[in-house]
Amino acid sequence: MAAASSPAAAITCRAAVAWAPGQALVMEEVEVAPPEAMEIRVKVVSTSICRSDVTQWQSTAQTDLFPRIFGHEASGVVESVGEGVTEFEVGDHVLTVFIGECMSCKHCVSGKSNMCQKLGLERRGVMHSDQKTRFSLRGKPVYHYCAVSSFSEYTVVHSGCAVKVGPTVPMDRICLLSCGVSAGLGAAWKVADISKGSSVVIFGLGTVGLSVAQGAKLRRASIIIGVDTNPEKQEKGKAFGVTDFINPEELNEPVQQVVKRLTNGGADYSFECVGDTGVVSTALQSCSDGWGLTVTLGVPKAKPEVSAHYALLLSGRTLKGSLFGGWRPKSDLPLLVDKYANKEIQVDDLVTHDLSFDDINKALELMLENKCLRCVIHMPQ
Amino acid sequence: MAAASSPAAAITCRAAVAWAPGQALVMEEVEVAPPEAMEIRVKVVSTSICRSDVTQWQSTAQTDLFPRIFGHEASGVVESVGEGVTEFEVGDHVLTVFIGECMSCKHCVSGKSNMCQKLGLERRGVMHSDQKTRFSLRGKPVYHYCAVSSFSEYTVVHSGCAVKVGPTVPMDRICLLSCGVSAGLGAAWKVADISKGSSVVIFGLGTVGLSVAQGAKLRRASIIIGVDTNPEKQEKGKAFGVTDFINPEELNEPVQQVVKRLTNGGADYSFECVGDTGVVSTALQSCSDGWGLTVTLGVPKAKPEVSAHYALLLSGRTLKGSLFGGWRPKSDLPLLVDKYANKEIQVDDLVTHDLSFDDINKALELMLENKCLRCVIHMPQ
Repeated sequence: MAAASSPAAAITCRAAVAWAPGQALVMEEVEVAPPEAMEIRVKVVSTSICRSDVTQWQSTAQTDLFPRIFGHEASGVVESVGEGVTEFEVGDHVLTVFIGECMSCKHCVSGKSNMCQKLGLERRGVMHSDQKTRFSLRGKPVYHYCAVSSFSEYTVVHSGCAVKVGPTVPMDRICLLSCGVSAGLGAAWKVADISKGSSVVIFGLGTVGLSVAQGAKLRRASIIIGVDTNPEKQEKGKAFGVTDFINPEELNEPVQQVVKRLTNGGADYSFECVGDTGVVSTALQSCSDGWGLTVTLGVPKAKPEVSAHYALLLSGRTLKGSLFGGWRPKSDLPLLVDKYANKEIQVDDLVTHDLSFDDINKALELMLENKCLRCVIHMPQ
Repeated sequence: MAAASSPAAAITCRAAVAWAPGQALVMEEVEVAPPEAMEIRVKVVSTSICRSDVTQWQSTAQTDLFPRIFGHEASGVVESVGEGVTEFEVGDHVLTVFIGECMSCKHCVSGKSNMCQKLGLERRGVMHSDQKTRFSLRGKPVYHYCAVSSFSEYTVVHSGCAVKVGPTVPMDRICLLSCGVSAGLGAAWKVADISKGSSVVIFGLGTVGLSVAQGAKLRRASIIIGVDTNPEKQEKGKAFGVTDFINPEELNEPVQQVVKRLTNGGADYSFECVGDTGVVSTALQSCSDGWGLTVTLGVPKAKPEVSAHYALLLSGRTLKGSLFGGWRPKSDLPLLVDKYANKEIQVDDLVTHDLSFDDINKALELMLENKCLRCVIHMPQ
């Protein structure tokens, strides 16, 4: 029982700390404060690495938020609970989530948005509740990332940013559901609502793009085109439902022209999963006038402005953004975990590397070199 | 009966011919060829002037398409029919439409698009069927505009670009339904599908924007914000349902900030009716994250690239284009005409000027000076 657990004290544990943009993470002994009201402290079991961890780690836009602990795709066990927490008990298995669901703000109540006004995307490296950190190192604060910071043996998250899972689901695989896989499936199912027999084109066959493909396949789309500059993605794509593969570097004509030919005028849906705003216009051009829908999922590494010729819109296309696939974490994520447990969705095949916590820099390198899909870091238990 | 009418000969009549971009139209005697197969020749009764006539008349992008006859919002009477036309008979009252409906292409058959592949937007100043003009002047071709060219006593249109109307509806008012009013109502009803109790912001209170307001009012939106730099639009807006008026030139803060305040965080729907791609980003910023929908209706006079920060999309906004309000002309327009006849929609109040054909240049001036909503030109009968 939460109320019965003894008051928690600070924990000293190992964390992979980023000291400066792009510099190798350093294993440090950090102090993790007890959870404040409505927070939980979690012993991290597994954390996978998402592209946005890497992008943010390399970014020089927020140098004042170093030292910082990255990581946000994770599973773990509740170690202690803060005041007022009734949803979780010590020992509960959880997934962490980078956007929470408070269940009471205008957006949560609406039932049509996952943009929780209280626990939305946290960009300042602190806790939602008091704008402070729960990590310290030699007495100095260490900043959080996306209110999760799972590159640490222990972390503190708001109870609204965790989802309870059953005790038997494999922790080292479902961590992928706390961001990438869910983001892709949600883009396909919830945001685009792909219909049977339709045509789909996906730009970027990383974990997110492959999960869009999986979502399209399960919706019985008839054409699923994958676009990627990495030729190895052709085989990988097939396994997730991609019916046609295009490598833009092997073409003598614009990608959108090939897509239009394959789809008799343009795909019903296109997805930008590269994180390149320049690709958005190509994605719009690749989908059908009249009803084509382009969904953007990526967080761009460079130019943040999306631009497109107005005529692409005027002729009936729609451009829509998708964050975490539109899922409301507490309301929707348990269903995805169930689907995984029932083998209705593939997750395991997206894990290309299982690494120990000490090898976390190797995982970052693999991602930088585009040599992995998901690396799962197994924390010491 | 169409088949029984005698073969048509060329007609000589007066047309207001544009000889060069932005230069006053000149009344000329033109020759109007008989309708070819599947075409009809129409005696124009009324034509109103749409902003896009003016934009295109001023544009220097297609100087090789002069001399040209503009005009596309019009009503008239079928004078003769070409081979194979069974839908119309001589004497039928019709509205002309700038995008047709062939009823047989992939888009028409889909039932979910008005981007007819056979009779879509015609930009080259010729007839769809043979890429030639039906107007000539001293033996030289005179180009069409949008496959309608209603600034002429007689014109030839494809039978797919005309919609039959009852003999008692006032021709000098329903011409507004052949473009502007329908475009606005369709954006509100069909494209945005505005729901009861929602909040709406409309950038630009011309005929199209006011028709969006009317559509929002009839859907019982609770807040309808009109944004216009012309202070006279405050009163006019009220008459069409605008509940709050914002003049950006009288503000000390960004428009989107005021809209967010009035709507508790952002409107459910925003509409860009100015024809300024720069306003699209403001419209996106003015609508709610999570579910906000921005509809762009305008054809930009300058910069054709729409751009916006990716985060506006990622946080759950949707950007959608609307051409002719998404209406399929033959399938949907008769319903709007009925609504007008039953006094369910306002059209008359959008007519600010009734002018004779000889005064057509005055109408263009009024539009250039933003001193009118719709000017209706009454053709000599």
